[in-house]
Amino acid sequence: MRVSQLFTKTSKNIPADEQAKNAQLLIRAGYIHKEMAGVYAYLPLGLRVLENIKRIVREEMNSVGGQELLMTTLQPRDIWGKTNRWDDEVVDNWFKTRLKNDTELGVGLTHEEPIVDALSSYVDSYKDLPLYVYQIAPKFRNELRAKSGILRGREFLMKDMYSFARTQAEHDELYEKAAEAYTRIFDRLGIGDRTYRTAADGGYFTERFSDEYQTISEVGEDTIYVDEAKKLAVNKEICTDENLVKLGLKREDLVEKRSVESGNIFPLESKYSDALGLYYTDEEGVRQSIIMGCYGIGISRVMGVLAEVFADGKGLVWPEAVAPFKVYLVNIGDVVNKTTDTYDRLQKAGVEVLWDDRETRPGEKFADADLLGIPYRVVVSERLGDKLELKARTGDKIEELNLDELLKHLA
Amino acid sequence: MRVSQLFTKTSKNIPADEQAKNAQLLIRAGYIHKEMAGVYAYLPLGLRVLENIKRIVREEMNSVGGQELLMTTLQPRDIWGKTNRWDDEVVDNWFKTRLKNDTELGVGLTHEEPIVDALSSYVDSYKDLPLYVYQIAPKFRNELRAKSGILRGREFLMKDMYSFARTQAEHDELYEKAAEAYTRIFDRLGIGDRTYRTAADGGYFTERFSDEYQTISEVGEDTIYVDEAKKLAVNKEICTDENLVKLGLKREDLVEKRSVESGNIFPLESKYSDALGLYYTDEEGVRQSIIMGCYGIGISRVMGVLAEVFADGKGLVWPEAVAPFKVYLVNIGDVVNKTTDTYDRLQKAGVEVLWDDRETRPGEKFADADLLGIPYRVVVSERLGDKLELKARTGDKIEELNLDELLKHLA
Repeated sequence: MRVSQLFTKTSKNIPADEQAKNAQLLIRAGYIHKEMAGVYAYLPLGLRVLENIKRIVREEMNSVGGQELLMTTLQPRDIWGKTNRWDDEVVDNWFKTRLKNDTELGVGLTHEEPIVDALSSYVDSYKDLPLYVYQIAPKFRNELRAKSGILRGREFLMKDMYSFARTQAEHDELYEKAAEAYTRIFDRLGIGDRTYRTAADGGYFTERFSDEYQTISEVGEDTIYVDEAKKLAVNKEICTDENLVKLGLKREDLVEKRSVESGNIFPLESKYSDALGLYYTDEEGVRQSIIMGCYGIGISRVMGVLAEVFADGKGLVWPEAVAPFKVYLVNIGDVVNKTTDTYDRLQKAGVEVLWDDRETRPGEKFADADLLGIPYRVVVSERLGDKLELKARTGDKIEELNLDELLKHLA
Repeated sequence: MRVSQLFTKTSKNIPADEQAKNAQLLIRAGYIHKEMAGVYAYLPLGLRVLENIKRIVREEMNSVGGQELLMTTLQPRDIWGKTNRWDDEVVDNWFKTRLKNDTELGVGLTHEEPIVDALSSYVDSYKDLPLYVYQIAPKFRNELRAKSGILRGREFLMKDMYSFARTQAEHDELYEKAAEAYTRIFDRLGIGDRTYRTAADGGYFTERFSDEYQTISEVGEDTIYVDEAKKLAVNKEICTDENLVKLGLKREDLVEKRSVESGNIFPLESKYSDALGLYYTDEEGVRQSIIMGCYGIGISRVMGVLAEVFADGKGLVWPEAVAPFKVYLVNIGDVVNKTTDTYDRLQKAGVEVLWDDRETRPGEKFADADLLGIPYRVVVSERLGDKLELKARTGDKIEELNLDELLKHLA
């Protein structure tokens, strides 16, 4: 794509109403537009990042056999009554709305109840299990305050998967298989090295731990204790001697860190399936409870995490796997033909290129390349003759290459 | 995919609470799940159809230079106040909700105002225009009744594109370019032959016509008069002698038809841009109005249209371009190895296959192949020796082919 064809522009001004670095940078770079506090639209560059994150998450959910579906935002009251999660005194962050006939509706904040309800049309025998279903869909939470940019929004995009197992042992297998997929996801997103599987509170209805995927970050809302050798952590909230024994961790091996939650896994026992009447009949014809797990990754939140943890003084820094483009192409001087040729050849080789074809000072183009956080900058200039300049966003080294060498390097 | 790995099942029972054929069939075939009247979840097969429609629409919007973004569902009151589209007395199908501090919010029913508002951060010079932006996003309309299945939902998925032009002539060019893309879309969706560009009322603020893309269907809510030779139509509501002259149509060439609206294009003049203060400065430094157009296609509605117009007595019939799978593979008797081989070879050739690997009577598998509406049925059976049976969903002819011939036919 050419910058001249992109309607967004960068800005030097830090938005006065944003405290979070992720929102400041993403707005300045034209990735997102603030609709109101905690509610952001995704502009073309931002949507490309979101789609790249979705693709990685989707591939890994499919790889464990997840079946993708799409639940609804509008929610009827009755199914939430069955689990006592309707009343605002119990769940304090619902958005509610009303039909013309005054029937109260919920605006989807999570989807355990409707998913279990939908499955009850299909699942009734041991032959129907085990299974995973998941969706990538918007969620809405009526947060009192929203100051963290896209890290914690009132409207956000989430991947939520649910597993359904016949026995505790089968559940444990599904749970671990999904946990392994989570490790692969965070590796592919470029934050595997700083994201720890972290034991946390499992909720009031289970004695099991939940697993948070905590990414080390200065802006993190959480405090965790990390065992770096074991690549495991424990949330400060549950870091008792008793729990450390259960987890096989020793206090002296732990280091305190600030972190932000990029994903989580909860054991749901049979709380939702029992409440909504989803059972299966076993080989002997006996009705049995279904053991569930739920597996969340905030897609837009992860985009915020990536913005926060990688950004430097010059702007955003995207890992290659999620960057909106791989190459930021800059032409300096009268080199239109050569730049067009470079642009075409790179694209033909499958490299996504954003060509800054504006008639602007080189310094401004370089500053935008940095602010946008595109992994590689390629410069075409008269001064360089047959060569092109290649610079990684994260490095200082500038290499001079001819086009074939460049293609070999990037494709 | 194997049917045994798909959690949905087909049902012979017509849902008692559904009057619309599209909803009856889509529920029986396990494509959708009814959350409440007018609100449907998309199960794995249904989501695949939706994604195929999205892909076609997205490709054609990109082909005219459309820049994709993603607006928000939660909407602040102020921008809608500027166009007088906030009050329930003016717009009667808003869903509204409230923040904790009691601020009223809208639940996005359309996006002219927020899109124009977002662009005002970026567009101010003649150099920034013309442009198209579009999104594919959920919309919410508080319909009094919802009886048409996914043809007219309270929650639905829509593609809405907006064009921004400097002059009326430039607007007309953008409008026609998008209209041509619409023709390509309906052709690719398999309803080009029965979908007419139809002149309709343009709204109270313009003397121009709007264009509806009306698909001939018995269940249509609209009446149109079609000039089959010119491949044009006019909505009954505006079919006056005066308008026919303007349109270059003659009453004697017109045939009355029932139809359903699959898409529409509206000239918006500068109603929204002026109201929200989006102007551009021309070459002489003079402030000018921006002429807008808006271009809608209901993605989920089109899925309903396809279900309605192609279904027969045996079930759904999907055009190949949107079908969830191209082939429904049926094994009869002890032919697991041969079926596995066929399944693998087809998939390797890029053909999407749903293998009915259940231990069920062949008749039941054939009935499901028909109900699901998969374009081709392939049978592997001992009786056939080296041959395979190929039957199109829409034909009666059964061909016997070997695997290589089958691959040549389908890949």
